[in-house]
Amino acid sequence: MPVNKQIVLDSRPTGKVSAANFRLVEKELPTTYDGYILVRNHYLSLDPYMRGRLNDVKSYARPQQVDEVMGGATVGEVVESHRAEFAVGDFVVGPGGWQQFSMADGMGWRKVSREIPLSAYLGVVGMPGVTAWYGLNEIIKPKAGETVVVSAASGAVGGVVGQLAKAKGARVIGIAGGREKCAYVREELGFDACLDYKSGRFEGELSVSLQDGIDGLFENVGGEPFLQCVKHFNDFARIAVCGLIASYEGAPTIFPNMLMFIARRIKMEGFIVGDHPDVWPKALAELGDLVGAGRLKYRETVRQGLEATPQALVDLLHGGNFGKMLVKLV
Amino acid sequence: MPVNKQIVLDSRPTGKVSAANFRLVEKELPTTYDGYILVRNHYLSLDPYMRGRLNDVKSYARPQQVDEVMGGATVGEVVESHRAEFAVGDFVVGPGGWQQFSMADGMGWRKVSREIPLSAYLGVVGMPGVTAWYGLNEIIKPKAGETVVVSAASGAVGGVVGQLAKAKGARVIGIAGGREKCAYVREELGFDACLDYKSGRFEGELSVSLQDGIDGLFENVGGEPFLQCVKHFNDFARIAVCGLIASYEGAPTIFPNMLMFIARRIKMEGFIVGDHPDVWPKALAELGDLVGAGRLKYRETVRQGLEATPQALVDLLHGGNFGKMLVKLV
Repeated sequence: MPVNKQIVLDSRPTGKVSAANFRLVEKELPTTYDGYILVRNHYLSLDPYMRGRLNDVKSYARPQQVDEVMGGATVGEVVESHRAEFAVGDFVVGPGGWQQFSMADGMGWRKVSREIPLSAYLGVVGMPGVTAWYGLNEIIKPKAGETVVVSAASGAVGGVVGQLAKAKGARVIGIAGGREKCAYVREELGFDACLDYKSGRFEGELSVSLQDGIDGLFENVGGEPFLQCVKHFNDFARIAVCGLIASYEGAPTIFPNMLMFIARRIKMEGFIVGDHPDVWPKALAELGDLVGAGRLKYRETVRQGLEATPQALVDLLHGGNFGKMLVKLV
Repeated sequence: MPVNKQIVLDSRPTGKVSAANFRLVEKELPTTYDGYILVRNHYLSLDPYMRGRLNDVKSYARPQQVDEVMGGATVGEVVESHRAEFAVGDFVVGPGGWQQFSMADGMGWRKVSREIPLSAYLGVVGMPGVTAWYGLNEIIKPKAGETVVVSAASGAVGGVVGQLAKAKGARVIGIAGGREKCAYVREELGFDACLDYKSGRFEGELSVSLQDGIDGLFENVGGEPFLQCVKHFNDFARIAVCGLIASYEGAPTIFPNMLMFIARRIKMEGFIVGDHPDVWPKALAELGDLVGAGRLKYRETVRQGLEATPQALVDLLHGGNFGKMLVKLV
């Protein structure tokens, strides 16, 4: 009987998550698949939102359950199909979880073309890309000449935000951790500037780059870099709160003085792209076209083998990725 | 030569404003009015935003200048007119300032009908009313059955917010200071409940009233009552930040944990009704009709005489008003 390797949540983290909070299990695959497909996963996606799922608190999604396969998006190949909408040999993306094989009723899965690299469907042409598209186009709505700031600028979401904002004529300032990431954001992704929040000169450099203030902020990080940005908001600034990775295992990010909301007429909106299924087809089509045409660049950090997955999540949460964090299984 | 009594800002307050920050002056009226109107002010309006104008900091309006007549809205009668759009005997509302007579080029002034009480044009059918209308209809956009919370519920803005929200089918919970104000908000204005933040039982009473959570919050106060409300936000809650009177002379109001923006998909927007001249005609017409029909109730605290104005502002900032705070000159 063929065996499926899986990673389950072994215990909820208290404080920082570690690889020891997960364990590898092996489980026999079923022998029949009536109404189901079986997907052989090629890539697993690691995403910052996963940290929140490990806590047993009410949030937008049911928490990850202990002893269950850790949830997450995968892309892979259909190897068995008992559903009319999928054929063996199709490539599909969906909520496969941290396992070699996923048995699914098709809900949440879609077929993908191989005209662009398969891994892109977990990043720039997947949930992170649509997240960038939504926050930029539906919340920030940048006008030509405005200044848009993007934190975690070299990440899976931030890189797309900045490139889309540049295409709309905005001036785009990235924030990232380290010289290498900042150089990539400027030179490869084409941001107007990218500032290293670890440099020790961040506050001053931000003031120089933001002499015209911030009209739009796409916030992925929170913490001290966010508090520095708050000082530069222009009247009618729009803040899309997408992620606060600095607070997932650290101190809460506060907003220091609500008077600014009135004095500057700030609009701040938190969002989850899963709430907006209506925009996905349009956003995915647009992002896929841009990638196909070579006009939307991205970078990946790819770890090898299912066993590497827990540590890949830990590293992602501490900036150990450069672009989209993935695990390659096949 | 006729004399005009005026109140000017004598010194900027450091900390709490007091009547001693202002001084009364007497100035001769001009003898010619080419291109101008002269308005004899009947009522002066006191509004919380005035406190912010006393600080010499960049905000949405130029600060009040020392030794200049303190700015503010007035309603009065045209007693001289050298402008085609106004006739002697017209009643008008506009930026008259703290003085008996205002000489004006007409900018910002509009004629009003006497079918409703003159003082209403400084409150429910004036800037405070339009403020309520805008924040409720353009930011909170309540649906029938949703819960809307309004702080400073007995005030000039809050009372209108709640009555308009009730008319849209929302459940409306007010917050006010003291039993008398709360009774008025429930019994006269028809809110579903009104909680006294000074009662010592506020936190518990709020939890009982908000078992279904908050869908919309019209925030006029900030401080501790706001922090209690934050605990009750529902998914997709909308917060209209209109005023933060608790912070104008006190500690800043912080937002304690930005993660809630994502977990609950909060939208928070600060606004100034002067930014939205397009809505004024529609809002004023609607509010005027409601007042004329007796379907929009309001209450006023009226002080007598120009000399009473500085203390009226001080009292307004500390909740010493019950409804709209006015000074009657004529």
